[in-house]
Amino acid sequence: MENLDHFLEIAHKLADSARPVIHQYYRTPVAVDVKADASPVTIADREVETAMRAILSEELPDHGILGEEHGRHNVDADCVWVLDPIDGTKSFIAGKPSFATLISLCHKGVPVLGIIDQAITDERWVGVMGRPSTMNSNEINARECETLDTATFFTTAPELFRTDASARAYKAVSEKCRQPMYGVDAYAYGLVALGFADTVVECGLQAYDFCALVPVVEGAGGVMTDWQGKPLTIFSDGAVVASGDARCHQNVLSTIRAATA
Amino acid sequence: MENLDHFLEIAHKLADSARPVIHQYYRTPVAVDVKADASPVTIADREVETAMRAILSEELPDHGILGEEHGRHNVDADCVWVLDPIDGTKSFIAGKPSFATLISLCHKGVPVLGIIDQAITDERWVGVMGRPSTMNSNEINARECETLDTATFFTTAPELFRTDASARAYKAVSEKCRQPMYGVDAYAYGLVALGFADTVVECGLQAYDFCALVPVVEGAGGVMTDWQGKPLTIFSDGAVVASGDARCHQNVLSTIRAATA
Repeated sequence: MENLDHFLEIAHKLADSARPVIHQYYRTPVAVDVKADASPVTIADREVETAMRAILSEELPDHGILGEEHGRHNVDADCVWVLDPIDGTKSFIAGKPSFATLISLCHKGVPVLGIIDQAITDERWVGVMGRPSTMNSNEINARECETLDTATFFTTAPELFRTDASARAYKAVSEKCRQPMYGVDAYAYGLVALGFADTVVECGLQAYDFCALVPVVEGAGGVMTDWQGKPLTIFSDGAVVASGDARCHQNVLSTIRAATA
Repeated sequence: MENLDHFLEIAHKLADSARPVIHQYYRTPVAVDVKADASPVTIADREVETAMRAILSEELPDHGILGEEHGRHNVDADCVWVLDPIDGTKSFIAGKPSFATLISLCHKGVPVLGIIDQAITDERWVGVMGRPSTMNSNEINARECETLDTATFFTTAPELFRTDASARAYKAVSEKCRQPMYGVDAYAYGLVALGFADTVVECGLQAYDFCALVPVVEGAGGVMTDWQGKPLTIFSDGAVVASGDARCHQNVLSTIRAATA
């Protein structure tokens, strides 16, 4: 893809613009509104997205934008930026530094560039299709882990699995893996890319929750797909698996398949 | 209690001694051993506790020590230091900076001084009986929250609640509160003390998991007791509740009572 270096530069600018806003509101008693889908939102979420959209309008006016807080703009364009200003708003509100700003560029629906940025701990994961992923500019690698009994498994909360089938899938994976670990939203995918966790299984996500994660995980040598094993696109249904080792990934997928058959 | 200022100085020395060891091993592929109780331990846990015990032997040779990794020494003394070098070893191993070093001094079994130290995010909570708690030397205050429907509720994992009665208690509190948040061990109690979370309910803890938390939570204006509402001592059974607001605390206790009756 042409211009990828320029788009990467813009992506860093977006992440840089988020940080001062997050620092301004972090661990202050911000008002919490509840959205139509019952998820919380704060002035910090809204202002971060506003800051990022202003840069995109200025720098890449022909590109589309799909943002969690301020909606869709020109999403039929070939290049669409998919933005979650604060993934893990509940953690942000609770003063827990495991939320992240998620930035991705999708080309014809396929995530080709992703950033996971944690402003408080000063950690920035960058993934670009076809290149090695980095964290704070250092190349990172997922680790080997073939079988589930030795896998460290993350999911944000058991409550994510609302349907009977998804609850069975969660239970099956959770029982085969070492004790599940909870509570860190996109940060868990960063831990897979760093080689300190082995698999993450979630469902009910939106494009802005997962698009940025795909290039980061895959550029570190991992695999990230939907629950059927298909590549994720901006149109995927939000049931995702990310694994550091392709063999582990297949084991998770077959466990999900057996549990939901 | 006499000498409390001196003991506080020593407590800071202990926390200071933990930090370089934690930085040395954090996000490195440390070997993980499994203890008799099935919990994991690493060289970092052991070396942090060794460093802290060396300081205590030198500075306060008459005091007792109860540590998670290296056992009991002179625990019949009036003053006993209760140490968890890395609370949240699973998080430490996964490279997730929500573990903490826990340091407390118990006088005749009662926690009179506590430190929660997070080496990676550079956060140190300090509680001393009868004094305001601090985080990084700034006074902190828990927040008001009377009713459970507005309470942010933390627990490390649903799997903590192994007995039928405790599982019923967890379910009852979790359903009355806003959606539970998971996964951060002692750090959650720090968030209560900071005024960004309202209640934490756990069980099956050891003295080294909870003694340090009591002075921090109570010095911030919160309340921390066992599930019957009794003050926590080194001898308590490890079922604990911490709340920022005494009214919320009573509501949690009565919910637990009703669920376990």
